[in-house]
Amino acid sequence: MFRNLKPVGRILYGRNSFDQLGDVLDELRVEKNSFVLFLVDEYFEGKDFLKRIPMKAQDILKIIDITDEPKTKTVDEMVAEIKNLGIGFPVSVVGIGGGSVMDYAKAIRLMFTNEGSSVQYQGLDFIKNKGVHCTVIPTISGTGAEVSITTVLTGPVKKLGIKGNFTAADQIVLDPELITTVPEPQRFYTAMDCYIHNVEALNGYRRSVMGDSLGIESLRIFREIYLSKDTRTPENEEKLMVASYLGGLSLTYSEVGACHAMSYGLATVTNIHHGVGNCVVFNQLDEFYPDAVKEFREMMTLNNIEIPRGVTANCTPEEIDIMIDVSLTLVFMWQHVCGPEWQKIITRDKLRGLFMKM
Amino acid sequence: MFRNLKPVGRILYGRNSFDQLGDVLDELRVEKNSFVLFLVDEYFEGKDFLKRIPMKAQDILKIIDITDEPKTKTVDEMVAEIKNLGIGFPVSVVGIGGGSVMDYAKAIRLMFTNEGSSVQYQGLDFIKNKGVHCTVIPTISGTGAEVSITTVLTGPVKKLGIKGNFTAADQIVLDPELITTVPEPQRFYTAMDCYIHNVEALNGYRRSVMGDSLGIESLRIFREIYLSKDTRTPENEEKLMVASYLGGLSLTYSEVGACHAMSYGLATVTNIHHGVGNCVVFNQLDEFYPDAVKEFREMMTLNNIEIPRGVTANCTPEEIDIMIDVSLTLVFMWQHVCGPEWQKIITRDKLRGLFMKM
Repeated sequence: MFRNLKPVGRILYGRNSFDQLGDVLDELRVEKNSFVLFLVDEYFEGKDFLKRIPMKAQDILKIIDITDEPKTKTVDEMVAEIKNLGIGFPVSVVGIGGGSVMDYAKAIRLMFTNEGSSVQYQGLDFIKNKGVHCTVIPTISGTGAEVSITTVLTGPVKKLGIKGNFTAADQIVLDPELITTVPEPQRFYTAMDCYIHNVEALNGYRRSVMGDSLGIESLRIFREIYLSKDTRTPENEEKLMVASYLGGLSLTYSEVGACHAMSYGLATVTNIHHGVGNCVVFNQLDEFYPDAVKEFREMMTLNNIEIPRGVTANCTPEEIDIMIDVSLTLVFMWQHVCGPEWQKIITRDKLRGLFMKM
Repeated sequence: MFRNLKPVGRILYGRNSFDQLGDVLDELRVEKNSFVLFLVDEYFEGKDFLKRIPMKAQDILKIIDITDEPKTKTVDEMVAEIKNLGIGFPVSVVGIGGGSVMDYAKAIRLMFTNEGSSVQYQGLDFIKNKGVHCTVIPTISGTGAEVSITTVLTGPVKKLGIKGNFTAADQIVLDPELITTVPEPQRFYTAMDCYIHNVEALNGYRRSVMGDSLGIESLRIFREIYLSKDTRTPENEEKLMVASYLGGLSLTYSEVGACHAMSYGLATVTNIHHGVGNCVVFNQLDEFYPDAVKEFREMMTLNNIEIPRGVTANCTPEEIDIMIDVSLTLVFMWQHVCGPEWQKIITRDKLRGLFMKM
């Protein structure tokens, strides 16, 4: 059985297309008291950009703290808070920011119409009801969250995506102008999420011509950017946005792999951000992706990036065990990497050895 | 202003995914008398494939004569015929076939909910009402009609697409198994539509990183197929299906060019099929696409294809003038090819000279 994929509903793409957001949302404001819930990355707090958000008097804007990766607890709290206002559901939940903010938007919109805690829905196809309308607008590129049908959340037990037929955004706005102010090294780390997605998608068992094709093209553009002299020309910013989009789309037809499985484990204990965590992990994965890890190191050198070292140095053996536990729950990723017999290859000792080197 | 693109609603992709069509349609059959309107390419008449179509007693199946390119007249007649039955609208118009059948499905579904003749809607954004649900299933690859937001129709005056926010299909099924029995040279001619789309999209003024990226990748796969020893391996069939999809998608962000503008003109008088017509025209376009025309000829040689010659030999000067008239109505294509000053380059004499060589 193949998934009858429900991709992103509408795509507004182009330089300065963000200026059309007001018109897009106005189409949804059909009733008098319609309100929009805006979630905005804390990076924009106090910045002029906030004035460009097409807010109306009745709308709600929340600045999103992204110190930690998106949590089920925060999702549940924010939905409860809005519900308690007794003003109905928003006509759109609009996430403006990076992967965390977009994933918050994608998760929160689902929890207005699906009862209980978001924890219950972590995994594949647990969501049964369509959520409220959701708009996501990346202001940093690489995560692919804008196009992905997964919204990754950290719960009390596991870090795992909510994924299914109702989980893609209804509307995305891809405006390359929005990503021009992202500081380094954050831009590099987030961009590398895209690179790693493609490498993982293209090296594994769950593949198809469509997934490969999108991954190959995403990787091609990515190399053009990160092996060029100036990665931050306007054209390269737009290329990065497109590479992220195609890389995220590629995953719909494939799967992430060893890096994401271990990075999820690492994040559970250390709270390291996804982009940085991926780089820390990927740097140790010569065994799985030898050529790509070499190329990744070249890109780091070219961009004067030094990834954190000794990330697990102060971790207790029990903490390392938690990382291993979490990684091993991601069975579908390991099956993609190593095939059905993955458990023979991915032993606790192997993972321990790798985690301790990070 | 950028278009807020409404792409294909759902994508079912995979080998033998056609077997899931019944389940997909069952979800739409919510009322007791719900019926589906199936449009099926005449190629399948009397073939076992018809038995695989998940028809219910109340459904209607029409075998579509594709001798001519899709006509506004046929669209209007078929809609009137179904309306006259007094059984309401179909829950889905399902087109199973090549570009013609898919375009019929995409046009007919619109004319249930938009009054008058389809002639009134040829052009950009004339359609004001959402059509009924539409499913398209390619059984030959290259046209990109499965993903395109354009449904090309020949009317009494012009050959021009209906294009807008309601014109993409709601559901597509991409099953590479369905295209394995396409005879040559039909397969070659239709495949070349994809090649030409990409060449046209990538050589012009209306471009973007997204459009280029999809076109480049479509072209990359296309070359892999058509410069390989055996173009018809199962993997190459799947690649062709994906190339067609990505090529069609690329056009959403770009535009066709000189070949399509002239091919539309040629078809109006000669009734030549789109795929063959494109090849006949493209073979004369060294001035516009020198490298690609050379590569196209290589592909023809490798695949033992001889395109028709002397297609316009028996045409009267008046007929050639009609071809020129129709071609010159396609202003947006010529603007893409030559820029705003296109009229200085694309003279009647130039077009006459080219048409007479075909």
